[in-house]
Amino acid sequence: MNLILLFPEDMVTDERARITGRRLRHVLDVHRAGVGDDLVVGLLGGRIGRGRVTRLDEAVLDMDVRFDRDPPAKLPLTVILALPRPKVLRRVLHSLSVMGVGRIVLVNAARVEKSYWQTPFLAADAIERQLVLGLEQSRDTVLPDVLLKQRFRPFVEDELPAMIKGSLSLVAHPGGVATCPRDVLGPATLAVGPEGGFVPYEIEKLVSLGFTLVSLGERVLNVETAIPALISRLF
Amino acid sequence: MNLILLFPEDMVTDERARITGRRLRHVLDVHRAGVGDDLVVGLLGGRIGRGRVTRLDEAVLDMDVRFDRDPPAKLPLTVILALPRPKVLRRVLHSLSVMGVGRIVLVNAARVEKSYWQTPFLAADAIERQLVLGLEQSRDTVLPDVLLKQRFRPFVEDELPAMIKGSLSLVAHPGGVATCPRDVLGPATLAVGPEGGFVPYEIEKLVSLGFTLVSLGERVLNVETAIPALISRLF
Repeated sequence: MNLILLFPEDMVTDERARITGRRLRHVLDVHRAGVGDDLVVGLLGGRIGRGRVTRLDEAVLDMDVRFDRDPPAKLPLTVILALPRPKVLRRVLHSLSVMGVGRIVLVNAARVEKSYWQTPFLAADAIERQLVLGLEQSRDTVLPDVLLKQRFRPFVEDELPAMIKGSLSLVAHPGGVATCPRDVLGPATLAVGPEGGFVPYEIEKLVSLGFTLVSLGERVLNVETAIPALISRLF
Repeated sequence: MNLILLFPEDMVTDERARITGRRLRHVLDVHRAGVGDDLVVGLLGGRIGRGRVTRLDEAVLDMDVRFDRDPPAKLPLTVILALPRPKVLRRVLHSLSVMGVGRIVLVNAARVEKSYWQTPFLAADAIERQLVLGLEQSRDTVLPDVLLKQRFRPFVEDELPAMIKGSLSLVAHPGGVATCPRDVLGPATLAVGPEGGFVPYEIEKLVSLGFTLVSLGERVLNVETAIPALISRLF
Protein backbone atom coordinates (compact mmCIF):
# COMPACT_ATOMS: atom_id res chain seq x y z
CA MET A 1 0.00 0.00 0.00
CA ASN A 2 1.96 2.94 -1.32
CA LEU A 3 -0.96 5.31 -0.86
CA ILE A 4 -3.80 5.19 1.62
CA LEU A 5 -6.94 5.75 -0.37
CA LEU A 6 -9.48 7.81 1.56
CA PHE A 7 -13.19 7.61 0.87
CA PRO A 8 -15.62 10.50 1.49
CA GLU A 9 -16.90 8.73 4.60
CA ASP A 10 -13.35 8.68 6.06
CA MET A 11 -13.20 12.49 6.10
CA VAL A 12 -14.17 13.86 9.50
CA THR A 13 -13.57 17.37 8.21
CA ASP A 14 -11.86 18.57 5.03
CA GLU A 15 -8.54 18.30 6.84
CA ARG A 16 -9.02 15.34 9.14
CA ALA A 17 -9.51 11.70 8.30
CA ARG A 18 -10.19 8.63 10.42
CA ILE A 19 -9.67 5.10 9.13
CA THR A 20 -10.19 1.66 10.62
CA GLY A 21 -10.17 -1.93 9.43
CA ARG A 22 -7.90 -3.20 6.66
CA ARG A 23 -6.04 0.06 6.06
CA LEU A 24 -5.43 0.60 9.80
CA ARG A 25 -4.14 -2.98 10.06
CA HIS A 26 -1.77 -2.37 7.17
CA VAL A 27 -0.37 0.84 8.68
CA LEU A 28 0.21 -0.96 11.99
CA ASP A 29 1.71 -4.16 10.60
CA VAL A 30 3.53 -3.10 7.44
CA HIS A 31 4.22 0.62 7.63
CA ARG A 32 4.74 0.35 11.40
CA ALA A 33 4.01 4.06 11.57
CA GLY A 34 3.62 6.09 14.75
CA VAL A 35 2.10 9.39 15.85
CA GLY A 36 3.80 12.26 14.00
CA ASP A 37 4.67 10.18 10.94
CA ASP A 38 3.58 11.26 7.48
CA LEU A 39 1.77 8.85 5.19
CA VAL A 40 0.95 9.26 1.51
CA VAL A 41 -2.80 9.64 1.14
CA GLY A 42 -5.21 10.32 -1.69
CA LEU A 43 -8.89 11.10 -1.84
CA LEU A 44 -10.92 8.72 -4.02
CA GLY A 45 -11.29 10.41 -7.39
CA GLY A 46 -9.35 13.41 -6.12
CA ARG A 47 -5.95 14.72 -5.15
CA ILE A 48 -2.94 13.23 -3.41
CA GLY A 49 -1.09 14.51 -0.37
CA ARG A 50 0.20 13.73 3.11
CA GLY A 51 -1.55 12.54 6.23
CA ARG A 52 0.16 13.26 9.55
CA VAL A 53 -0.73 10.64 12.12
CA THR A 54 -2.33 12.18 15.21
CA ARG A 55 -3.64 9.00 16.80
CA LEU A 56 -2.82 5.38 16.08
CA ASP A 57 -3.93 2.39 18.09
CA GLU A 58 -5.67 -0.93 17.54
CA ALA A 59 -9.00 0.85 17.03
CA VAL A 60 -8.43 3.86 14.80
CA LEU A 61 -5.95 5.91 12.82
CA ASP A 62 -6.53 9.66 12.85
CA MET A 63 -4.65 11.92 10.44
CA ASP A 64 -4.41 15.58 9.59
CA VAL A 65 -4.41 15.54 5.82
CA ARG A 66 -3.31 18.00 3.20
CA PHE A 67 -3.81 17.37 -0.52
CA ASP A 68 -1.37 19.15 -2.78
CA ARG A 69 -1.06 17.39 -6.08
CA ASP A 70 -2.99 15.61 -8.81
CA PRO A 71 -2.86 11.86 -9.25
CA PRO A 72 -0.93 10.51 -12.25
CA ALA A 73 -2.80 10.85 -15.53
CA LYS A 74 -4.83 7.88 -16.64
CA LEU A 75 -3.69 6.15 -19.82
CA PRO A 76 -5.98 7.05 -22.76
CA LEU A 77 -6.57 3.34 -23.17
CA THR A 78 -9.61 1.12 -23.24
CA VAL A 79 -8.87 -2.56 -22.69
CA ILE A 80 -11.52 -4.91 -24.05
CA LEU A 81 -10.90 -8.21 -22.37
CA ALA A 82 -12.63 -11.51 -22.99
CA LEU A 83 -13.73 -12.53 -19.50
CA PRO A 84 -10.97 -14.70 -18.04
CA ARG A 85 -11.49 -17.36 -15.40
CA PRO A 86 -12.20 -15.92 -11.96
CA LYS A 87 -8.76 -16.29 -10.38
CA VAL A 88 -7.14 -14.65 -13.38
CA LEU A 89 -9.85 -11.98 -13.51
CA ARG A 90 -8.96 -10.75 -10.03
CA ARG A 91 -5.25 -10.45 -10.80
CA VAL A 92 -5.87 -8.81 -14.16
CA LEU A 93 -8.25 -6.22 -12.71
CA HIS A 94 -5.57 -5.42 -10.17
CA SER A 95 -2.87 -5.01 -12.77
CA LEU A 96 -5.09 -2.96 -15.13
CA SER A 97 -5.72 -0.63 -12.21
CA VAL A 98 -2.02 -0.52 -11.32
CA MET A 99 -1.08 0.34 -14.90
CA GLY A 100 -3.55 3.24 -14.99
CA VAL A 101 -5.93 2.01 -17.69
CA GLY A 102 -8.87 4.38 -18.08
CA ARG A 103 -11.59 1.96 -19.12
CA ILE A 104 -12.02 -1.80 -18.93
CA VAL A 105 -14.66 -3.71 -20.86
CA LEU A 106 -15.18 -7.34 -19.87
CA VAL A 107 -16.78 -9.03 -22.83
CA ASN A 108 -18.06 -12.45 -23.72
CA ALA A 109 -16.43 -14.53 -26.48
CA ALA A 110 -16.93 -17.98 -27.93
CA ARG A 111 -14.07 -19.44 -25.88
CA VAL A 112 -15.19 -17.86 -22.59
CA GLU A 113 -16.77 -20.52 -20.40
CA LYS A 114 -20.35 -19.55 -19.54
CA SER A 115 -19.77 -20.33 -15.87
CA TYR A 116 -17.23 -17.50 -15.63
CA TRP A 117 -20.10 -15.00 -15.73
CA GLN A 118 -21.44 -16.46 -12.48
CA THR A 119 -18.36 -15.72 -10.38
CA PRO A 120 -18.84 -13.56 -7.27
CA PHE A 121 -15.68 -11.70 -8.37
CA LEU A 122 -17.85 -9.90 -10.93
CA ALA A 123 -20.01 -8.28 -8.25
CA ALA A 124 -19.53 -4.51 -8.28
CA ASP A 125 -17.95 -4.43 -4.82
CA ALA A 126 -15.58 -7.31 -5.64
CA ILE A 127 -14.42 -5.55 -8.79
CA GLU A 128 -13.97 -2.30 -6.91
CA ARG A 129 -11.93 -4.05 -4.24
CA GLN A 130 -9.34 -5.19 -6.81
CA LEU A 131 -9.27 -1.79 -8.46
CA VAL A 132 -8.77 -0.06 -5.11
CA LEU A 133 -5.89 -2.39 -4.26
CA GLY A 134 -4.38 -1.41 -7.59
CA LEU A 135 -4.75 2.31 -6.87
CA GLU A 136 -3.15 1.84 -3.43
CA GLN A 137 -0.24 0.05 -5.10
CA SER A 138 0.36 2.55 -7.87
CA ARG A 139 -0.45 5.78 -5.94
CA ASP A 140 -3.51 6.72 -7.91
CA THR A 141 -6.98 7.81 -6.78
CA VAL A 142 -9.13 7.45 -9.89
CA LEU A 143 -10.98 4.20 -10.47
CA PRO A 144 -11.07 2.98 -14.06
CA ASP A 145 -14.54 2.57 -15.56
CA VAL A 146 -15.56 -1.05 -15.83
CA LEU A 147 -18.26 -2.26 -18.20
CA LEU A 148 -19.61 -5.81 -18.44
CA LYS A 149 -20.83 -6.94 -21.85
CA GLN A 150 -22.24 -10.40 -21.70
CA ARG A 151 -23.11 -10.56 -25.40
CA PHE A 152 -20.27 -10.15 -27.88
CA ARG A 153 -22.17 -9.33 -31.04
CA PRO A 154 -24.52 -6.59 -29.83
CA PHE A 155 -21.62 -4.98 -28.02
CA VAL A 156 -19.36 -5.06 -31.06
CA GLU A 157 -22.03 -3.99 -33.52
CA ASP A 158 -23.92 -1.40 -31.50
CA GLU A 159 -21.50 0.10 -29.00
CA LEU A 160 -17.92 -0.53 -30.07
CA PRO A 161 -17.91 1.66 -33.20
CA ALA A 162 -18.62 4.78 -31.14
CA MET A 163 -16.24 3.69 -28.40
CA ILE A 164 -13.22 3.38 -30.70
CA LYS A 165 -13.83 6.56 -32.67
CA GLY A 166 -10.51 8.40 -32.94
CA SER A 167 -8.51 5.66 -31.23
CA LEU A 168 -5.84 3.30 -32.50
CA SER A 169 -7.58 -0.07 -32.29
CA LEU A 170 -5.59 -3.24 -31.82
CA VAL A 171 -6.33 -6.90 -31.15
CA ALA A 172 -3.61 -8.86 -29.42
CA HIS A 173 -3.45 -12.11 -31.33
CA PRO A 174 -0.64 -14.65 -31.13
CA GLY A 175 0.81 -14.83 -34.60
CA GLY A 176 -0.74 -11.42 -35.37
CA VAL A 177 0.66 -9.93 -38.54
CA ALA A 178 2.14 -6.73 -37.10
CA THR A 179 4.31 -6.29 -34.06
CA CYS A 180 2.59 -4.35 -31.31
CA PRO A 181 3.49 -0.67 -31.88
CA ARG A 182 5.65 1.19 -29.37
CA ASP A 183 5.02 4.48 -27.73
CA VAL A 184 1.73 5.51 -29.30
CA LEU A 185 0.78 8.97 -28.18
CA GLY A 186 -2.98 9.19 -28.64
CA PRO A 187 -5.97 7.18 -27.46
CA ALA A 188 -5.89 3.46 -28.03
CA THR A 189 -8.18 0.47 -27.70
CA LEU A 190 -6.69 -2.94 -27.06
CA ALA A 191 -8.75 -6.11 -27.35
CA VAL A 192 -7.39 -9.24 -25.67
CA GLY A 193 -9.01 -12.61 -26.30
CA PRO A 194 -9.64 -15.57 -24.02
CA GLU A 195 -7.28 -18.50 -23.53
CA GLY A 196 -7.15 -20.05 -26.98
CA GLY A 197 -7.81 -16.66 -28.57
CA PHE A 198 -10.77 -15.07 -30.29
CA VAL A 199 -12.41 -17.34 -32.88
CA PRO A 200 -12.18 -16.31 -36.55
CA TYR A 201 -15.70 -14.82 -36.56
CA GLU A 202 -14.80 -12.55 -33.65
CA ILE A 203 -11.52 -11.52 -35.24
CA GLU A 204 -13.34 -10.72 -38.48
CA LYS A 205 -15.87 -8.56 -36.66
CA LEU A 206 -13.10 -6.59 -34.97
CA VAL A 207 -11.09 -6.26 -38.16
CA SER A 208 -14.19 -5.02 -39.98
CA LEU A 209 -14.34 -2.15 -37.48
CA GLY A 210 -10.72 -1.24 -38.16
CA PHE A 211 -8.85 -3.25 -35.53
CA THR A 212 -5.33 -4.37 -36.44
CA LEU A 213 -3.99 -7.75 -35.32
CA VAL A 214 -0.78 -7.34 -33.35
CA SER A 215 1.48 -9.72 -31.47
CA LEU A 216 4.42 -9.55 -29.13
CA GLY A 217 6.34 -12.17 -31.08
CA GLU A 218 6.47 -15.92 -31.28
CA ARG A 219 5.62 -16.61 -27.68
CA VAL A 220 2.06 -17.18 -26.52
CA LEU A 221 1.68 -15.11 -23.35
CA ASN A 222 -0.90 -15.78 -20.66
CA VAL A 223 -3.27 -12.91 -20.10
CA GLU A 224 -1.70 -11.84 -16.75
CA THR A 225 1.65 -11.45 -18.51
CA ALA A 226 0.31 -10.13 -21.80
CA ILE A 227 -1.63 -7.22 -20.31
CA PRO A 228 1.27 -5.36 -18.66
CA ALA A 229 3.58 -6.34 -21.52
CA LEU A 230 1.24 -4.88 -24.16
CA ILE A 231 0.38 -1.75 -22.20
CA SER A 232 3.97 -0.90 -21.44
CA ARG A 233 4.82 -1.38 -25.10
CA LEU A 234 2.03 0.94 -26.17
CA PHE A 235 2.61 3.78 -23.67
CA MET B 1 -0.74 -25.64 -22.32
CA ASN B 2 0.15 -24.48 -25.82
CA LEU B 3 2.98 -26.98 -26.11
CA ILE B 4 3.36 -30.38 -24.48
CA LEU B 5 6.86 -30.45 -23.08
CA LEU B 6 8.45 -33.88 -23.40
CA PHE B 7 11.19 -35.07 -21.09
CA PRO B 8 13.83 -37.60 -22.10
CA GLU B 9 12.05 -40.25 -20.03
CA ASP B 10 8.85 -39.73 -22.07
CA MET B 11 10.61 -40.81 -25.27
CA VAL B 12 9.97 -44.50 -25.98
CA THR B 13 12.03 -44.20 -29.16
CA ASP B 14 13.28 -41.10 -31.00
CA GLU B 15 9.92 -40.89 -32.74
CA ARG B 16 7.50 -42.14 -30.13
CA ALA B 17 6.51 -40.59 -26.82
CA ARG B 18 4.26 -41.74 -23.99
CA ILE B 19 2.93 -39.39 -21.35
CA THR B 20 0.75 -39.84 -18.30
CA GLY B 21 -0.36 -37.77 -15.32
CA ARG B 22 -0.89 -34.00 -15.46
CA ARG B 23 -0.18 -33.60 -19.17
CA LEU B 24 -2.43 -36.53 -20.12
CA ARG B 25 -5.18 -35.04 -17.94
CA HIS B 26 -4.81 -31.69 -19.68
CA VAL B 27 -5.04 -33.22 -23.16
CA LEU B 28 -8.18 -35.13 -22.14
CA ASP B 29 -9.94 -32.29 -20.32
CA VAL B 30 -8.82 -29.14 -22.10
CA HIS B 31 -7.57 -30.06 -25.55
CA ARG B 32 -10.18 -32.83 -25.78
CA ALA B 33 -7.99 -34.44 -28.41
CA GLY B 34 -8.57 -37.84 -29.97
CA VAL B 35 -6.58 -40.49 -31.85
CA GLY B 36 -5.25 -38.99 -35.08
CA ASP B 37 -5.11 -35.41 -33.77
CA ASP B 38 -1.88 -33.43 -33.89
CA LEU B 39 -0.57 -31.69 -30.79
CA VAL B 40 2.28 -29.19 -30.54
CA VAL B 41 5.16 -30.83 -28.69
CA GLY B 42 8.70 -29.88 -27.76
CA LEU B 43 11.60 -31.78 -26.30
CA LEU B 44 13.01 -30.29 -23.11
CA GLY B 45 15.99 -28.19 -24.14
CA GLY B 46 15.47 -29.17 -27.77
CA ARG B 47 13.30 -28.72 -30.82
CA ILE B 48 9.58 -28.24 -31.38
CA GLY B 49 7.24 -30.20 -33.61
CA ARG B 50 4.03 -32.20 -33.83
CA GLY B 51 2.84 -35.27 -31.96
CA ARG B 52 0.18 -37.36 -33.67
CA VAL B 53 -1.98 -39.16 -31.11
CA THR B 54 -1.92 -42.94 -31.59
CA ARG B 55 -3.50 -43.93 -28.29
CA LEU B 56 -5.40 -41.86 -25.77
CA ASP B 57 -7.28 -43.17 -22.76
CA GLU B 58 -7.45 -42.56 -19.01
CA ALA B 59 -4.08 -44.28 -18.56
CA VAL B 60 -1.71 -43.07 -21.27
CA LEU B 61 -1.24 -40.85 -24.28
CA ASP B 62 0.96 -42.27 -27.04
CA MET B 63 2.20 -40.06 -29.85
CA ASP B 64 4.29 -40.34 -32.98
CA VAL B 65 6.43 -37.22 -32.78
CA ARG B 66 8.39 -35.28 -35.33
CA PHE B 67 10.52 -32.29 -34.39
CA ASP B 68 11.06 -29.78 -37.16
CA ARG B 69 11.90 -26.36 -35.75
CA ASP B 70 13.86 -24.52 -33.10
CA PRO B 71 12.21 -22.99 -30.06
CA PRO B 72 11.98 -19.18 -29.93
CA ALA B 73 15.27 -17.52 -29.02
CA LYS B 74 15.80 -16.71 -25.37
CA LEU B 75 16.03 -13.03 -24.48
CA PRO B 76 19.64 -12.00 -23.80
CA LEU B 77 18.46 -10.85 -20.39
CA THR B 78 19.43 -11.61 -16.82
CA VAL B 79 16.83 -10.61 -14.23
CA ILE B 80 18.20 -10.07 -10.75
CA LEU B 81 15.21 -10.18 -8.46
CA ALA B 82 15.09 -9.52 -4.74
CA LEU B 83 13.34 -12.62 -3.41
CA PRO B 84 9.61 -11.83 -3.29
CA ARG B 85 7.14 -13.45 -0.92
CA PRO B 86 6.35 -17.03 -1.83
CA LYS B 87 3.00 -16.54 -3.57
CA VAL B 88 4.45 -13.79 -5.71
CA LEU B 89 7.62 -15.80 -6.36
CA ARG B 90 5.65 -18.58 -8.02
CA ARG B 91 3.79 -16.24 -10.33
CA VAL B 92 6.91 -14.27 -11.19
CA LEU B 93 8.92 -17.38 -12.02
CA HIS B 94 6.10 -18.41 -14.31
CA SER B 95 6.02 -15.07 -16.07
CA LEU B 96 9.81 -14.83 -16.39
CA SER B 97 9.70 -18.23 -18.07
CA VAL B 98 6.80 -17.18 -20.31
CA MET B 99 8.66 -14.05 -21.39
CA GLY B 100 11.75 -16.05 -22.36
CA VAL B 101 14.27 -14.63 -19.88
CA GLY B 102 17.60 -16.43 -20.13
CA ARG B 103 18.80 -16.19 -16.55
CA ILE B 104 17.12 -15.44 -13.24
CA VAL B 105 19.04 -14.58 -10.08
CA LEU B 106 17.04 -14.56 -6.84
CA VAL B 107 18.98 -12.43 -4.41
CA ASN B 108 18.64 -11.29 -0.83
CA ALA B 109 18.13 -7.62 0.05
CA ALA B 110 17.58 -5.63 3.23
CA ARG B 111 13.82 -5.50 2.72
CA VAL B 112 13.46 -9.21 1.91
CA GLU B 113 11.95 -10.99 4.90
CA LYS B 114 14.29 -13.72 6.08
CA SER B 115 11.44 -16.22 6.26
CA TYR B 116 11.00 -16.04 2.48
CA TRP B 117 14.18 -18.08 2.07
CA GLN B 118 12.48 -20.97 3.90
CA THR B 119 9.63 -21.41 1.45
CA PRO B 120 9.22 -24.82 -0.18
CA PHE B 121 8.68 -22.95 -3.46
CA LEU B 122 12.45 -22.44 -3.58
CA ALA B 123 13.12 -26.18 -3.80
CA ALA B 124 14.67 -27.04 -7.15
CA ASP B 125 11.69 -29.13 -8.26
CA ALA B 126 9.20 -26.44 -7.22
CA ILE B 127 11.10 -23.81 -9.21
CA GLU B 128 11.31 -26.11 -12.21
CA ARG B 129 7.59 -26.78 -12.05
CA GLN B 130 6.79 -23.06 -12.48
CA LEU B 131 9.34 -22.69 -15.24
CA VAL B 132 7.95 -25.71 -17.08
CA LEU B 133 4.42 -24.30 -16.85
CA GLY B 134 5.81 -21.11 -18.38
CA LEU B 135 7.44 -23.01 -21.25
CA GLU B 136 4.21 -24.91 -21.91
CA GLN B 137 2.35 -21.59 -22.04
CA SER B 138 4.77 -19.78 -24.33
CA ARG B 139 5.77 -22.70 -26.60
CA ASP B 140 9.37 -22.86 -25.54
CA THR B 141 11.54 -25.81 -24.50
CA VAL B 142 14.56 -24.20 -22.86
CA LEU B 143 14.55 -23.67 -19.10
CA PRO B 144 16.06 -20.40 -17.90
CA ASP B 145 19.01 -20.73 -15.52
CA VAL B 146 18.06 -19.92 -11.96
CA LEU B 147 20.61 -18.95 -9.31
CA LEU B 148 19.90 -18.36 -5.63
CA LYS B 149 22.11 -15.82 -3.85
CA GLN B 150 21.25 -15.60 -0.21
CA ARG B 151 23.86 -12.94 0.57
CA PHE B 152 23.60 -9.65 -1.28
CA ARG B 153 27.05 -8.23 -0.75
CA PRO B 154 29.26 -11.16 -1.70
CA PHE B 155 27.09 -11.73 -4.76
CA VAL B 156 27.28 -8.11 -5.86
CA GLU B 157 30.98 -7.71 -5.12
CA ASP B 158 32.34 -11.05 -6.24
CA GLU B 159 30.05 -12.37 -8.95
CA LEU B 160 27.99 -9.58 -10.42
CA PRO B 161 30.83 -7.66 -12.12
CA ALA B 162 31.68 -10.61 -14.34
CA MET B 163 28.00 -11.38 -14.93
CA ILE B 164 27.16 -7.93 -16.31
CA LYS B 165 30.24 -7.54 -18.47
CA GLY B 166 29.10 -6.26 -21.87
CA SER B 167 25.47 -5.87 -20.84
CA LEU B 168 23.27 -2.82 -20.38
CA SER B 169 22.65 -2.84 -16.63
CA LEU B 170 19.51 -1.31 -15.18
CA VAL B 171 17.84 -1.14 -11.78
CA ALA B 172 14.10 -0.64 -11.80
CA HIS B 173 13.49 1.98 -9.16
CA PRO B 174 10.27 3.94 -8.69
CA GLY B 175 11.18 7.55 -9.24
CA GLY B 176 14.34 6.41 -11.08
CA VAL B 177 15.94 9.23 -13.00
CA ALA B 178 15.74 7.81 -16.51
CA THR B 179 12.78 6.25 -18.25
CA CYS B 180 13.30 2.58 -18.98
CA PRO B 181 14.82 2.39 -22.47
CA ARG B 182 12.86 0.85 -25.34
CA ASP B 183 13.95 -1.79 -27.75
CA VAL B 184 17.52 -2.43 -26.67
CA LEU B 185 19.21 -4.83 -29.00
CA GLY B 186 22.05 -6.34 -27.00
CA PRO B 187 22.39 -8.18 -23.70
CA ALA B 188 20.83 -6.56 -20.67
CA THR B 189 20.70 -7.07 -16.92
CA LEU B 190 17.68 -5.85 -15.00
CA ALA B 191 17.65 -5.66 -11.21
CA VAL B 192 14.28 -5.45 -9.49
CA GLY B 193 14.05 -4.71 -5.78
CA PRO B 194 11.72 -6.01 -3.07
CA GLU B 195 8.46 -4.37 -2.04
CA GLY B 196 9.57 -1.02 -0.70
CA GLY B 197 12.57 -1.04 -3.03
CA PHE B 198 16.28 -1.58 -2.58
CA VAL B 199 17.74 0.42 0.33
CA PRO B 200 20.18 3.26 -0.50
CA TYR B 201 23.23 1.09 0.28
CA GLU B 202 22.10 -1.53 -2.21
CA ILE B 203 21.34 1.06 -4.86
CA GLU B 204 24.81 2.59 -4.34
CA LYS B 205 26.47 -0.78 -4.74
CA LEU B 206 24.63 -1.40 -7.99
CA VAL B 207 25.28 2.10 -9.29
CA SER B 208 28.99 1.71 -8.47
CA LEU B 209 29.04 -1.27 -10.84
CA GLY B 210 27.50 0.79 -13.61
CA PHE B 211 23.79 0.14 -13.14
CA THR B 212 21.43 2.94 -14.21
CA LEU B 213 18.25 3.69 -12.26
CA VAL B 214 15.22 3.51 -14.49
CA SER B 215 11.51 3.78 -13.93
CA LEU B 216 8.30 3.25 -15.85
CA GLY B 217 6.86 6.56 -14.72
CA GLU B 218 5.08 7.94 -11.70
CA ARG B 219 3.26 4.77 -10.81
CA VAL B 220 4.66 2.25 -8.37
CA LEU B 221 4.11 -1.15 -9.96
CA ASN B 222 3.94 -4.41 -8.05
CA VAL B 223 6.58 -6.90 -9.08
CA GLU B 224 4.18 -9.19 -10.98
CA THR B 225 3.15 -6.24 -13.14
CA ALA B 226 6.55 -4.59 -13.34
CA ILE B 227 8.40 -7.63 -14.67
CA PRO B 228 6.45 -8.12 -17.92
CA ALA B 229 6.10 -4.35 -18.32
CA LEU B 230 9.85 -3.77 -18.06
CA ILE B 231 10.82 -6.72 -20.22
CA SER B 232 8.44 -5.85 -23.01
CA ARG B 233 9.75 -2.29 -22.92
CA LEU B 234 13.33 -3.48 -23.21
CA PHE B 235 12.89 -6.06 -25.98
